[in-house]
Amino acid sequence: MPIEKLRTRLAELVDLSSLEMLASWDQLVMMPGEGAAGRGHLLGTLARITHERATSEEIGDWLAELEGVELTELDRDIVRLARRDWERARRVPPDLAAELSEAHADGQEAWRIARAADDFSLFAPALVRNVELARAYGECHHDGGGVYQALLDDFDFGLRAEQLRSLFGALSGELSQLVEEAREGGPVREPAVPAEAQRRAVAATLRRVGVDERSWRVDVSAHPFTAWMGPRDTRVTTRYDDGGIESLLSSLHEYGHALYERQVDPALARTNLGSGTSMSIHESQSKLWENHVARHRAFAGVLAADLAAAGFPVPAAELHKALVAVRPSLIRVSADPLTYPLHIVLRFELELAMIEGQLAVADLPAAWGEGIKRLLGLEVPSDALGCLQDIHWGGGSFGYFPSYAVGCLIAAQLWEAMERDIGARDAELERGEVAAIQRWLADSVHRHGRRLDTIPLVEEATGSGLQIDPFLRFVAPFTSV
Amino acid sequence: MPIEKLRTRLAELVDLSSLEMLASWDQLVMMPGEGAAGRGHLLGTLARITHERATSEEIGDWLAELEGVELTELDRDIVRLARRDWERARRVPPDLAAELSEAHADGQEAWRIARAADDFSLFAPALVRNVELARAYGECHHDGGGVYQALLDDFDFGLRAEQLRSLFGALSGELSQLVEEAREGGPVREPAVPAEAQRRAVAATLRRVGVDERSWRVDVSAHPFTAWMGPRDTRVTTRYDDGGIESLLSSLHEYGHALYERQVDPALARTNLGSGTSMSIHESQSKLWENHVARHRAFAGVLAADLAAAGFPVPAAELHKALVAVRPSLIRVSADPLTYPLHIVLRFELELAMIEGQLAVADLPAAWGEGIKRLLGLEVPSDALGCLQDIHWGGGSFGYFPSYAVGCLIAAQLWEAMERDIGARDAELERGEVAAIQRWLADSVHRHGRRLDTIPLVEEATGSGLQIDPFLRFVAPFTSV
Repeated sequence: MPIEKLRTRLAELVDLSSLEMLASWDQLVMMPGEGAAGRGHLLGTLARITHERATSEEIGDWLAELEGVELTELDRDIVRLARRDWERARRVPPDLAAELSEAHADGQEAWRIARAADDFSLFAPALVRNVELARAYGECHHDGGGVYQALLDDFDFGLRAEQLRSLFGALSGELSQLVEEAREGGPVREPAVPAEAQRRAVAATLRRVGVDERSWRVDVSAHPFTAWMGPRDTRVTTRYDDGGIESLLSSLHEYGHALYERQVDPALARTNLGSGTSMSIHESQSKLWENHVARHRAFAGVLAADLAAAGFPVPAAELHKALVAVRPSLIRVSADPLTYPLHIVLRFELELAMIEGQLAVADLPAAWGEGIKRLLGLEVPSDALGCLQDIHWGGGSFGYFPSYAVGCLIAAQLWEAMERDIGARDAELERGEVAAIQRWLADSVHRHGRRLDTIPLVEEATGSGLQIDPFLRFVAPFTSV
Repeated sequence: MPIEKLRTRLAELVDLSSLEMLASWDQLVMMPGEGAAGRGHLLGTLARITHERATSEEIGDWLAELEGVELTELDRDIVRLARRDWERARRVPPDLAAELSEAHADGQEAWRIARAADDFSLFAPALVRNVELARAYGECHHDGGGVYQALLDDFDFGLRAEQLRSLFGALSGELSQLVEEAREGGPVREPAVPAEAQRRAVAATLRRVGVDERSWRVDVSAHPFTAWMGPRDTRVTTRYDDGGIESLLSSLHEYGHALYERQVDPALARTNLGSGTSMSIHESQSKLWENHVARHRAFAGVLAADLAAAGFPVPAAELHKALVAVRPSLIRVSADPLTYPLHIVLRFELELAMIEGQLAVADLPAAWGEGIKRLLGLEVPSDALGCLQDIHWGGGSFGYFPSYAVGCLIAAQLWEAMERDIGARDAELERGEVAAIQRWLADSVHRHGRRLDTIPLVEEATGSGLQIDPFLRFVAPFTSV
C-alpha cells in the first residue's frame, strides 16, 4: 500500500529529525568542547541522509500512486503536506544545499570573530556570500512571489511578505508613539537575584506548570532553547546570570515552545503533521507564556512567592514593574515587551532590502543606526551593540526574524480569544493555576500540529486574521510603569 | 574512484555508529524515563538505516572494482575489513535480523521481570526463543566451524571455540586449586566509603590519568559503561554505592576501554579500522587498568591519598587488601580478581551446551548450581543469585561472555610484556605516574585499531599466543591475603 510506505518513510524522517535535535542539544548542553569537530561530522552525515531520504524518487512514486485514491481525512492531510515538503526539498540542487551549509557554518564563525572584535568589516564578506546564496536558494522556489517570499515560506508557509510589510508599518507607527509616552518614566530597579536563587525559583515555577522529571529535563546553556526528542522527552534550557530576572521570563518562554509540541494530537505522532506548524505560531506559544502569563499582574505574586521560597524575598508589585517597564534598549534579547517588536521591524526592513538588492551589505551599519534612531530614539555606539548582535544572518537565516514579532501579535490575539471563550484568568493566575490555559491551547492551537498553516490556524482559534490591536491593548498599560 | 566512494560510505557508517552510541548514552544517563518508547523508535530507525547502508549492493560493486587495483597498505586493510564486514552483514536475512532485534528487546524485559520475581520459569520461554534464534543466526554464517563459533566470531573474530574450551579447562583447573588455598583467609574489612567521598576520590584519580573536561565526561549510570562519540569526546560512567569501593575499580576499568579508543592511530579515524578490534582486546584494556594498575600494591598509596583528600582516610595496606582479597562469591560483577574468570568459564560451558543442544533451557538452573558448587564451592540459594544475575542471554548475546575471561588473560600477558620492554612500573605507580604505560599501550596495542585481530595483536604485542600463566602469576599472591 503506497500510503503505508509513505507513512513509514515519514516516521523515519521524524526519527532522523529527533536524532538531529538530540545531537544538537547534546552539543550545546553536554558535549566536551573538543568534541565539536566530530559532532560536525555526525550532523553533516545526518543531514545528508535525511535529505536523500526526504527527496527520493520513491516518495514521488508513492504520491503519484495515491492520486485519486480514497483516503481518510488524516491521510489526505498527510499526503498534502508530504507533497508540499517533497516538492520544496527537491527544488534545491544538492550542490547548492552543500554550499549553503558550508557558507552558514563559515558565516557563523565570521560573525563570532567580528562581534568579539566589534568590527562589522570582518563579517561583511561572509554576509555578502550568505545574501547571494539566499537569493540563489530563493530563486529555486519562487513562483511569482519574489525571492524574499520564498525564504519566508520556509519558516511560515502562507504568510505573505506584502502583508508583513503593511502590518509592520502600522505596528511600528503605533508603537513608536507609545515609546514616546513611555519616555517619561524614571529608572526601574531590577531585583538583583543571585543565580542560585533564580535556579531554585525557576524550578519551582516550572513545577507549577507541570514540568516533572518523568518526561522533562531543565538544563543550562549559553542561549536558552527547547528540544523535543519525542512526546514524552522534552528538554528546556535557560541560563542564570547573577543579578537578573531574565531566567524567570526565558524559562516560561521555552516552556511555551515545549508545551506546544507536547500537546499535538497523539494521532499525528511520527507523521509529518506531528509538530508545530510554523515559526510564528511556535513563537506565539512562547510569547504567550512569557508575555501573558509571566508578565501578568496576577501571576507576579506567584513568581514572588517562588523567589521568596528560594531565599530572595521581593514585593510582587516591584517584581511586576521590573518585568513590564518600557525602557528602549539597543539589544533585542533584553528588550521590554513593548519595544521588542520594533527591533524585529527593523531587521525585517533591512533583510528585505538586502535580499531585494536595495541595500548593499556595506551600508548595513549606517542603515541600522538610522533605524534604531527612528524607531527607538537611540544612538548606536558600536557594531557589537548594533547590527552584529544577532547570529541569524551569519547562519544564513533570512525570513526568520518576522516570526518573533508575528508571534507577539498572535499571542495577544490568542490570549484575548481565550479570555473571550473561558473568561479572564486573573483569579487562577493568582493561585498559580494554568490547567485551563493549557487545555484551551491544546484544543485551539496545539492539537492541530501541521494540519493548519499559520493564517488558517489563527482564524480557526480567534475568528479573525492577523491583527495588531490586541497586542497594542496588551502593551498600552506598560507605558505608564 | 571506488576507494574514495568506499571510504566515504565507511565514514558515514562510523558516524551512524557514533549517533547510536550517543542515543544509547543519553538514554542511560540523561533521558527522562518516559522517553523510552520514543527512544526505541529512534534506535530502531538508526539500526535499519545503518544495516541498509552497510549491506548495500554498491559496496559489493566498489569491492569488485577494487580487485587487483594497486592500493596503499592502509587502503588494503580497509578493503580487507570492508569485505569481511559486508559479507558477514549480508548473510543475515532482514526478516531474521528484525526478529532477533524484537526477541532481544522482549528477552531483556522478560529477564527483568523474572529476576525481580526471582523466578527462572518467567524467563525460560524467552530464553528458549533466543537460543533458537541464535542458532538460526549462527547457521547463516557457519562455514564448518559450528554455530557457536559463528556467534563468537561476531565479538572476537579469529578466536576459536575449541581453543577456548581447552584454555578455560586448564584455567579452571588451576584456579579451583588456588581457591582452595584461599579458603583459609579470614574476613576482610572493606572500607565503608560514603558515596560523595568516592565521587571526589574517583574524580581525583581520573584526573591523574588524564581525564579532563575538555574532551571527557564522567557521569553516573545504573551500570558503568563507556561511550565514545569521537576521538575527543569520551564519556565514562560509574556508580557510587554508599559504603563500597567498587567505583575506584570500575572507573579505572572504564578508563581502560576509553583510552583504547582514544589512542587508535588518528590516520584510521572515520574508517572501518578506527576502533577497538574485538571484545576480548577491549576487555584486556579495561582489565589492565582495573587489575594491574588499580589493584597494584604500589598504586594503593595513590588511591588512599585520593580517598584521604576526599575526606576518607584509610591506610594504603588495608585498602590494597580489600581490593585483592580472594573470597568466592555468587555474583560475577562483584567477584574478586582470582575467582572472576571462573564465573565466566561456567557461563561459557553453559551457553555452549545450550547452543549445541546438550543442555535444555529448563535444566539451566540445576546446571548452574552444579557448576558454582564445582568451581567455587558455593551453594546457589536462588535463581536471582544464580542464572538470572546477568542480562546478556536475555539480550540474545551468546559468545560474548568469553571475552571477559580472555580479557583478564591478555591483560596479564600485556602487563608482563610491558614490564619486560620498559621495566617494572612500581616506582612510577607509587607516584601516580602512568604516562609510560599509556605510551606502551598506544604503541603496542591501541594504534593498530582493527588492523590486527585478537590473536595476531596478542602475538605482536607479547611475542606469544594466548596464555594462562601470566594471569596465574598475577593472582597467586592474592590467595594469602
